[in-house]
Amino acid sequence: MSEDLRVHLDRDTTLCISLSGRPSNIGTRFHNYLYRELGLNYVYKAFTTADLAGAVTGIRALGIRGAGVSMPFKEAVIDLVDELDPSAAAIDSVNTIVSDDGRLRAYNTDYTAVRSLLEGVPQDASVAVAGSGGMAKAVVAALHAHGLRDGTVVARNDVTGPALARRYDFAWEPELGGRRPDVLVNATPIGMAGGPDASALPFSLDAVESATTVFDVVAMPSETPLLKAAAAANKTVISGASVIALQAAEQFALYTGVRPTDEQIRRASTFSRE
Amino acid sequence: MSEDLRVHLDRDTTLCISLSGRPSNIGTRFHNYLYRELGLNYVYKAFTTADLAGAVTGIRALGIRGAGVSMPFKEAVIDLVDELDPSAAAIDSVNTIVSDDGRLRAYNTDYTAVRSLLEGVPQDASVAVAGSGGMAKAVVAALHAHGLRDGTVVARNDVTGPALARRYDFAWEPELGGRRPDVLVNATPIGMAGGPDASALPFSLDAVESATTVFDVVAMPSETPLLKAAAAANKTVISGASVIALQAAEQFALYTGVRPTDEQIRRASTFSRE
Repeated sequence: MSEDLRVHLDRDTTLCISLSGRPSNIGTRFHNYLYRELGLNYVYKAFTTADLAGAVTGIRALGIRGAGVSMPFKEAVIDLVDELDPSAAAIDSVNTIVSDDGRLRAYNTDYTAVRSLLEGVPQDASVAVAGSGGMAKAVVAALHAHGLRDGTVVARNDVTGPALARRYDFAWEPELGGRRPDVLVNATPIGMAGGPDASALPFSLDAVESATTVFDVVAMPSETPLLKAAAAANKTVISGASVIALQAAEQFALYTGVRPTDEQIRRASTFSRE
Repeated sequence: MSEDLRVHLDRDTTLCISLSGRPSNIGTRFHNYLYRELGLNYVYKAFTTADLAGAVTGIRALGIRGAGVSMPFKEAVIDLVDELDPSAAAIDSVNTIVSDDGRLRAYNTDYTAVRSLLEGVPQDASVAVAGSGGMAKAVVAALHAHGLRDGTVVARNDVTGPALARRYDFAWEPELGGRRPDVLVNATPIGMAGGPDASALPFSLDAVESATTVFDVVAMPSETPLLKAAAAANKTVISGASVIALQAAEQFALYTGVRPTDEQIRRASTFSRE
């Protein structure tokens, strides 16, 4: 049983929401925990909707300050906002809307977070990205924007794989094969707790040992089999948990103008998963 | 400093709201107090809007369960809902919207509350109603629906006064004059705390002494000068505070399906005004 979350509410309380096909408690607990911690008169509530355009009309009309956007609304919402931030335009995908008196600007803080986490990676590094879904798109776009040009999309899907690779002038391969890139990024569900491949590795141990940096977008568990293998081999690791924490902090700062400390983010993340 | 109100929130929490030109804290405190008291997973938040139609679209699209409607939206909202309950149709005025999966039904719980409170009044009683505004309309319509036919609207306004009287086949007089009706109803702001006529009486003491029942819609203070005079003269009294409590209980029951006890309503009312 998780700790009960109680929030302050009065007529001046600012509302932020999320819109998703299947609301979870994570965002509600994460944001409300930090509002309380930081003494902000905000409240956060998860919603689903069968009428995305109506929900966006409601955001404007009710003065809702911000909205997290999840599947299946990340692309459809683009036509309903007033401005696209470059982070959303870069991957044609929105995960955050901010309303300034009814004027809606859309962001993608997953993309922003991935870009920030790539800062230490040299531009001349070679990279392989496993996967060709929504998160793979954010990763490949961020790698490309960071300046990396020697890239391979590794994906069995022979439609989305080549399409993603072509867009950023990366190579496409159904398998990594004998390639030994400097940077390995997993953007598939392999290693995700509760999934069919929870204990599997998306890249061979040999590839991990040849790399310098290993990045796993899987966030649950925070130490995936891939990241454990990379840490054991003394590689630089970037975790999915850090992507989630950073994107949530970014979203929080967009809504409130306040940037939580890393420690506050860590505690809010822990609380949100209890 | 009033006691801080903290409410539970998770992804399954049902949202109820209010829409008004100038949100107060009263509804937010009243409803959230009772949700907590009754262990209901609901939260209530006051909103204003510059786009009533957009706000109603948002109520449908976000699955908001209910909305209290105050000035200046009580009439304009009629065209935006799917069904009018007889309580709203009776006076062309809405103060409550209930959404059943996006299908909106509009009520007027002020009217319902006034009707309930008139239950003990004999149908052959004569009645005078002071005032010709929104609350006077609810009162006259309720008196008429209760079966009273010997009625007078007492109002200086020679447009709204005669119009209200005509609609229900009541007489109109600018002053009560020598009339001595059985039932006196004050639907003006006379006697309201903080107003210009806080210590005045809307009817003469002589008229009060000749009546059997005295009803004051003014709710602050709960014992108005009129009700004090009526109680001192051993008359049956109906207070504005009881109208407010009853209409709020009715609204609460429409949103949640749960009817609070009188004692719970009393405590919530006290809490909401702290």
